[in-house]
Amino acid sequence: MSYYLTVDIGGTKTACAAGTAAAEILHRREHPTPVAQGPEACLERIARELRHVLREMRGTSPAPEAVGVACGGPLDSRTGTIYSPPNLPGWDGVPVKAFLEERFGLPTFVENDANAGALAEHRFGAGRGKRNLIYLTLGTGIGGGIIIDGRLYRGTTDDAGEIGHTTILPDGPECLCGKRGCLEALVAGPAIQARAQRLAREHPGSLMNGLVTRSGEITPAVALQAAKQRDWAACEVFRETGLYLGIGIANLIQVLNPEVIALGTIAVHARNLLLSPARRSARRHSWPRAWKAVRVVPSKLGERVGDLAALCCALNAGA
Amino acid sequence: MSYYLTVDIGGTKTACAAGTAAAEILHRREHPTPVAQGPEACLERIARELRHVLREMRGTSPAPEAVGVACGGPLDSRTGTIYSPPNLPGWDGVPVKAFLEERFGLPTFVENDANAGALAEHRFGAGRGKRNLIYLTLGTGIGGGIIIDGRLYRGTTDDAGEIGHTTILPDGPECLCGKRGCLEALVAGPAIQARAQRLAREHPGSLMNGLVTRSGEITPAVALQAAKQRDWAACEVFRETGLYLGIGIANLIQVLNPEVIALGTIAVHARNLLLSPARRSARRHSWPRAWKAVRVVPSKLGERVGDLAALCCALNAGA
Repeated sequence: MSYYLTVDIGGTKTACAAGTAAAEILHRREHPTPVAQGPEACLERIARELRHVLREMRGTSPAPEAVGVACGGPLDSRTGTIYSPPNLPGWDGVPVKAFLEERFGLPTFVENDANAGALAEHRFGAGRGKRNLIYLTLGTGIGGGIIIDGRLYRGTTDDAGEIGHTTILPDGPECLCGKRGCLEALVAGPAIQARAQRLAREHPGSLMNGLVTRSGEITPAVALQAAKQRDWAACEVFRETGLYLGIGIANLIQVLNPEVIALGTIAVHARNLLLSPARRSARRHSWPRAWKAVRVVPSKLGERVGDLAALCCALNAGA
Repeated sequence: MSYYLTVDIGGTKTACAAGTAAAEILHRREHPTPVAQGPEACLERIARELRHVLREMRGTSPAPEAVGVACGGPLDSRTGTIYSPPNLPGWDGVPVKAFLEERFGLPTFVENDANAGALAEHRFGAGRGKRNLIYLTLGTGIGGGIIIDGRLYRGTTDDAGEIGHTTILPDGPECLCGKRGCLEALVAGPAIQARAQRLAREHPGSLMNGLVTRSGEITPAVALQAAKQRDWAACEVFRETGLYLGIGIANLIQVLNPEVIALGTIAVHARNLLLSPARRSARRHSWPRAWKAVRVVPSKLGERVGDLAALCCALNAGA
C-alpha cells in the first residue's frame, strides 16, 4: 500500500502520521510542540515521531512516497523554509524541507496551513470536484487558501490568501498585525470573545453570565453554549460577527466569483448561528449572479483537517 | 501579414479596426454607438464598419485570423452573449459572437472590457512578462481584470474581477449598483466630482471655483487642472480619493499578492496626484512582504487600451 508521511505543526501541538491518497490517516501520534526549546528541538522531535510512524508501517507497506508538512506562514513553499509565523516565535528561516529530506531521504513538501487546508477541502471536503474554492480558517486568527481552476494559488511571493487582513472597517478595532479594521480583528476568536464580554455586560440577564469558565471568562465557547439555548445576547454575538464575516465573504465573491467558500473551526462549531447571519450579510454585499454561483459552507473535514492538509501537501507535489 | 479584426464597444462610441499580434492598429474607424436604435442596429453598424476595414486591408493582406470584441459586462465569454451592461441599456441577451461569426465566417472572441484590458496590459503594457496582474479601469465606473499565473481568470460564472463593487466603507455612500460603500461609489468619476464640488464649496478661494465648465460644473477634469496648479482643495480631492483607492488596492494585495496593479483612465490623467496618496494608503493597509512584491502603476497603454483590449481577446483565443 502506497502512503505518505504527514506533519501538522501547530503552535500548541504537532501531529505526525501516515496517510493514504484515499484520505486514510494511520498511526497518528500527537505531541505538544516544544516551542520554548527552539526550532531545532521541535524538528528533532518531529523526526523521532516520524521514525515511530515508519516503524509501525514497516511490514505492511513499502517506504512512503513523500512527506507533507502544513505549518503556519509566512513561509517559502519552494524552499520549504519557515519565516517567523506568529504562532512559532523564534522560527525565523527554519529549513523544514531541507531538514526532513536530509533525515529521511524523501521528497518533502511544505505549505502554510491555510493553503494546505484549501487543498484538503478541495480534494476531500466541501470543494470536491469544484474548480474555484476559498478556504478560511476561523480560529484564533483567520487564514485563507485559494484554489483557482483546480490549482492552489500561492501568489507572487507565497503571500496570497491573507484574507484575514483585508480591511473591512477603516478605523475599526486594532488588529494584532498592526493595521485597523482587519477581518480578523472583527471576526476571529478574540473578537468574538470581546463582543461576548461586552454583550454579557450590557445584558445582565444573559445566560452567558452564568456560564463563565473556571477562570471567570466569557469565551467564544461560552457564548456558543448560551446561543444554542437561544439566549438573545449570545445569539447577537454571532449575528454581529456574521455581519462582518459576510462583508469579507462578499468581497471575495466580488473579486474571485468562487463556487465554494468553506469555513473552518468556529464556523464548524457554530454552524448556522454564525453562518446564517454571515450568508445574509454576504448576499446583501455582493451581486446576485456571483452570489447565486457560490455555496458558503462549514468545512467538511472537521477535526481531520490538519492531518489531511499535511497529506495534501504531499499529494499536491509539484503542482 | 497576418491580422485580426477588433471591435471596442462602448456606451458612447464604438471603434473597429485591424490589428496585428505586434500591437499595430491599422485602419481604425470610430462611430457613435447608436444605442437608442437598439442592439440590432448597433451590430449592423459594426458589421458595416468592419467591411470597410476589410476593404482597406484587401490587397496588402490575406483574410483576418479572427475577431476580438471588448464590451461592457456582464456577458458570457463562452457563448459571446451580452447581458444588460449598465452602459448599453436594452442589450439583454445579445449574441454578439454568433452574429459576427455568421456575418464574417471568422472565429470571434468576446470579453468584458476590464478582462480584455487586463489581457492587453499583460501582453503589451505594464504587465509584460509578469505572472500575476490586476487591471482596474477607473473612469465613470470601476471594472477589474485578473491575470493569474499568466492567464485571464474569469471566475465561475464570468463574474470575477468586480473589484469596483467590493465594500470599502460599510454604511458609506450609496452606489449605483444598490449597495453601499463600494469602491466605485468612493473612487470613480462621479465620486471624485461630488468630492470636488464639496471641497470647492468649503474652500471659496479654491481655484476650482474659477475653472468651472461651461455648464457650471466642477468636474474631475476641473479638479485635476486646479490640482496641477497646486490648489490645496483640489489636491485634497485626489488625496481623499487616493485614501479609499488605496484600501481597495491593499485588499487586492492581501488576497492576490500580485506583481502589478495597473490603473486606467483617471489614474493615467492624474498620475501621482492620485497615485501617491493611493500608494501611501495601500502600503498602510497591506503587509510589507506583499507590498514589496507589487508595483502600483498607471496603465501604459493610454488611449490605445480599447483597441488593444479587443485585439487581445482574439489573440487570447481559446485560453
